[in-house]
Amino acid sequence: MYPKDKIFFTLFEKLAENLEEISAAMTSMVNSTSKEKRKEWATTITRLENVGDTYTHDVFIQLSVNFITPFDREDIHYLVSSIDDVADHICGAAKRIDMYNIDSIDSPMIRLAELVEKGSNELGIALRGLRNMKNIGRIKESCIRINSIENNADDVFEMAIANLFEDEKDAIKLIKIKEIYASLEEATDKCEDAANVIESILVKHA
Amino acid sequence: MYPKDKIFFTLFEKLAENLEEISAAMTSMVNSTSKEKRKEWATTITRLENVGDTYTHDVFIQLSVNFITPFDREDIHYLVSSIDDVADHICGAAKRIDMYNIDSIDSPMIRLAELVEKGSNELGIALRGLRNMKNIGRIKESCIRINSIENNADDVFEMAIANLFEDEKDAIKLIKIKEIYASLEEATDKCEDAANVIESILVKHA
Amino acid sequence: MYPKDKIFFTLFEKLAENLEEISAAMTSMVNSTSKEKRKEWATTITRLENVGDTYTHDVFIQLSVNFITPFDREDIHYLVSSIDDVADHICGAAKRIDMYNIDSIDSPMIRLAELVEKGSNELGIALRGLRNMKNIGRIKESCIRINSIENNADDVFEMAIANLFEDEKDAIKLIKIKEIYASLEEATDKCEDAANVIESILVKHA
Repeated sequence: MYPKDKIFFTLFEKLAENLEEISAAMTSMVNSTSKEKRKEWATTITRLENVGDTYTHDVFIQLSVNFITPFDREDIHYLVSSIDDVADHICGAAKRIDMYNIDSIDSPMIRLAELVEKGSNELGIALRGLRNMKNIGRIKESCIRINSIENNADDVFEMAIANLFEDEKDAIKLIKIKEIYASLEEATDKCEDAANVIESILVKHA
Repeated sequence: MYPKDKIFFTLFEKLAENLEEISAAMTSMVNSTSKEKRKEWATTITRLENVGDTYTHDVFIQLSVNFITPFDREDIHYLVSSIDDVADHICGAAKRIDMYNIDSIDSPMIRLAELVEKGSNELGIALRGLRNMKNIGRIKESCIRINSIENNADDVFEMAIANLFEDEKDAIKLIKIKEIYASLEEATDKCEDAANVIESILVKHA
Repeated sequence: MYPKDKIFFTLFEKLAENLEEISAAMTSMVNSTSKEKRKEWATTITRLENVGDTYTHDVFIQLSVNFITPFDREDIHYLVSSIDDVADHICGAAKRIDMYNIDSIDSPMIRLAELVEKGSNELGIALRGLRNMKNIGRIKESCIRINSIENNADDVFEMAIANLFEDEKDAIKLIKIKEIYASLEEATDKCEDAANVIESILVKHA
């Protein structure tokens, strides 16, 4: 490993930790029973999302100034963009719950937030594994789990949407809830995108 | 042609055939008169979309393990991602027709599905032409046709949306129908993205 | 500078000028008091957006035929794609205002259109600065301003959406207005994407 590579792994770890915090905050948010508590969590999530942005920006700067990078430049670019997208979608869900003045959190939101948190934690394991590549089996396992979490979220989402259109007769309420489901579901999609990049990094380094 | 290149062309052809099947299934679906028949088609389309995912994944693996590729690595990546997106959007339309419990298919849906099928077939011709590049004129012709199919779909879509907002007073029904139109229209957008990559591959190999 | 580089800078300048025209037309459109005037502006914007498409296409062709490019190939690709996206979203907003038969333009639309125009003008300054790189400080300044314009647009958008969901009880009208806000806000997002690419080009050329 070139010494300059270290900065990338350090930034991956910071991004991993930040994403784990954001997704845990999201789970806490949907499990909070008061609007005030949820508003506080939304503020926390927005703040963490801004922190994540600065790490992402740091990675782009490092990609620009370093001639040698530990993995293909475009893989690193796509990997951190995907992590940034996961955080963005979680933040989007949090802002909507607050901004749309949602009265009560329903069970698909809780279920989806839990899946986002699970996916983020597996992504964290995979990202931390990249530094020394000692346990490639464990990184692969996380990627596989992220794929199955995304499939799971897809099923929860589709069922929730079908039920929503079946039960919710207030169109404006339907729009609000649908967007929150969609933001959370897209967060798991972006976890999968990140996992796919990691898998392709592993293939190249096999 | 390097022997290893063959695998890419074989996968392009599998993706082409799969997309042609998916888009033909979509046309059959919107021309089916019963919800039960349409549900069956939605199941078929979802299954085919999963098959396509495995081919896409195979291309990414081949990009990782092969040092030499028949075209620029990023062009291949972007090409198969676009094909994957076409299939995704078709599948999204199919799932929504089923999931939203749509009673009757309207003429813009049929018209858009036909344009998606036409575009997919032209894309299939272009993709199959890449193997030996004997008939570059024919590949170009398909790309031009895909561009004009996309323009056509744009016009159909915009007119359909204007009519929908004019005529449909039930907001929830409007949301459902609007999303189905949009998914089909986006499928033709992604066909065009794929055609644009193929055009730029042709320019480089001129 | 290689002589062949000139064509890229010339195209960047054409794209800059075109985007400035489009965004100025958008501001004129939202400040027009009659639907007929607004329809005319929508036609103008659509025409300009098509002109921009041909410049974008020209850049892609130049990327394919030139072995040497003034900046990294993928940076140029991403830069002009982002400019194209800005124009697309402005055009999407213009088409919707016309197509959805919007009766009166509200103040968040005017505010967002002004921010889009400001962002486009700063992007124009940055793009024109790339040719000789004499005044890197000025290019950077534009990029920083674009970032703050995007933050500003974000705040305007979120406030406008919260108010819309609070005040608008007609779901169909809400859908229309929400999409117009979103298109304009996304235009500023894409300005920021373009600015980020320019910043990373500057870092590499430092």
